[in-house]
Amino acid sequence: MNYVLYAAELIGTIAFAVSGAALAIQKRLDLFGILFLGVITALGGGTVRDLLLGHTPPRMFYNVQYVALAILSSFLMFLLAKKRGGGVLSSGVDSFMFNLSDALGLGIFAVIGTQAGMTDGYGDNAFFCIILGMTTGVGGGIIRDIMCTDIPFVLRKHIYAVAALVGSTIFYILVYLNIDITLSSLIGMAATVSLRLLARHYRWNLPRIESTEEAKVD
Amino acid sequence: MNYVLYAAELIGTIAFAVSGAALAIQKRLDLFGILFLGVITALGGGTVRDLLLGHTPPRMFYNVQYVALAILSSFLMFLLAKKRGGGVLSSGVDSFMFNLSDALGLGIFAVIGTQAGMTDGYGDNAFFCIILGMTTGVGGGIIRDIMCTDIPFVLRKHIYAVAALVGSTIFYILVYLNIDITLSSLIGMAATVSLRLLARHYRWNLPRIESTEEAKVD
Amino acid sequence: MNYVLYAAELIGTIAFAVSGAALAIQKRLDLFGILFLGVITALGGGTVRDLLLGHTPPRMFYNVQYVALAILSSFLMFLLAKKRGGGVLSSGVDSFMFNLSDALGLGIFAVIGTQAGMTDGYGDNAFFCIILGMTTGVGGGIIRDIMCTDIPFVLRKHIYAVAALVGSTIFYILVYLNIDITLSSLIGMAATVSLRLLARHYRWNLPRIESTEEAKVD
Repeated sequence: MNYVLYAAELIGTIAFAVSGAALAIQKRLDLFGILFLGVITALGGGTVRDLLLGHTPPRMFYNVQYVALAILSSFLMFLLAKKRGGGVLSSGVDSFMFNLSDALGLGIFAVIGTQAGMTDGYGDNAFFCIILGMTTGVGGGIIRDIMCTDIPFVLRKHIYAVAALVGSTIFYILVYLNIDITLSSLIGMAATVSLRLLARHYRWNLPRIESTEEAKVD
Repeated sequence: MNYVLYAAELIGTIAFAVSGAALAIQKRLDLFGILFLGVITALGGGTVRDLLLGHTPPRMFYNVQYVALAILSSFLMFLLAKKRGGGVLSSGVDSFMFNLSDALGLGIFAVIGTQAGMTDGYGDNAFFCIILGMTTGVGGGIIRDIMCTDIPFVLRKHIYAVAALVGSTIFYILVYLNIDITLSSLIGMAATVSLRLLARHYRWNLPRIESTEEAKVD
Repeated sequence: MNYVLYAAELIGTIAFAVSGAALAIQKRLDLFGILFLGVITALGGGTVRDLLLGHTPPRMFYNVQYVALAILSSFLMFLLAKKRGGGVLSSGVDSFMFNLSDALGLGIFAVIGTQAGMTDGYGDNAFFCIILGMTTGVGGGIIRDIMCTDIPFVLRKHIYAVAALVGSTIFYILVYLNIDITLSSLIGMAATVSLRLLARHYRWNLPRIESTEEAKVD
């Protein structure tokens, strides 16, 4: 057990549960909807990753503490929103905290997902391990957004999945070079988090096409 | 083969196929869409459960009678709607029948899903078995609603997934206490069905936050 | 290695990547969104098929050339749209090309999916193999549409999944009758493609209910 990685996973779980609960509150869901979306967001990415790995039952079913932590975090968001009588993301400070925790979750889960692939014996398949990292990082948010009938974050936000890919790749290369795994993890996470926050702050954009005519697909 | 459980599974399959077909008719889908959504709703939850269990191919592919029954039920809904020249859920009696059959499907599939986990050798993992029950109960409806771009029932209806959790938990505990499996099943199903119907009748609500300000997630 | 099937799979990959990228461009997504949706559309159906087969990791993770081809195809769509300053499907020729390539992808993937089931040892289970073919053919498009919050093509288009079912079934029967696999593949693909194109050209419709009253599902 690596305590740094374990602590990081707890932080990532809290961060994503908070983002799921916040969206549920915004969508006016009831208490169960808030807890459900918090848990799905926090644990959905890892569950999809484990299905791709053929690692069944998915790890979350043997680590009830993550589910409990996600439920608790979501419930605290519910209480906070109730106390405030409304939105939980209304002030500038809230918005910064939300984006910071979301970026933290992304960076942490990208590294953990890559590591899960290496631990399960696919260390030779760099492509698979890195995609597992991205999937773990963005998967929970995709399920969260689809269940709320929003176009997923990953397709709308600046440099989101790309940040996860960069962190996963850096972590993979460092471990491959026999760098200490805790150090590799921290560097990989820091890369994703800082890239994501910088992209948001400076509004870095990937190129986009401004369509003037309506496309026709029938 | 336990004939009571087998009969229950057939009833649950019909109930959920009907709910999928009814939504497809409401969404003005064509005959294939109606059959497709009926089958997906009836068998989607069990398929997701089997993927989580690593039980591949999923059981539905070895039990073609369930698929056939779901197709037949959906087709009868199509004929009924055609004969009536429109909605299949327009009267108060229809609405009651629809909600009764949906509650029946939920209760039956919650128990069957929990039992599948115990049969496949995970009886010691209460958390996993109970979540499998809930997944089997609500999974098909989630896929149905997402494919119709609705926010899933489970996030909108009063005491829906919670009713499935209660029935799964009661069934698990009774089996654990060595109560006869048929009796345990019937008690678990009855708990979910009655809780769901009571919640609907009395409009029991889980707490919810009435937000006055627009939350901001960017 | 069967070169005809291999070439067909490459063509199917390109065709579906193009359809995913075209939808992403229509939805004004950025470059990453375009590539992501192209890859998901081209490889999503096969990935779901492999999960149903319990074939993990899914084949796409050992055949990076398909992912690379999907990325390249999507990127070329991006360049084309940029050069034109807008839609990629605006003219009648484009629309024909789009529908032809989509039909090609459908026919090719339906046959390949059926064959994957037979190769993995489920040749005796005709139902499973044929459903695997349909899943491979329509799965990527379903994920594409759900991520864009559209009701999936498969529920809206005339004779879409049905065409995949027909091609899969013909292929399965021919192989079962010991017809040469390349010939069987080409006949199965041709059946799906021509059925799909004819259905579109002549606007063949499956029956549908024109509802006059609003159905009520609560």
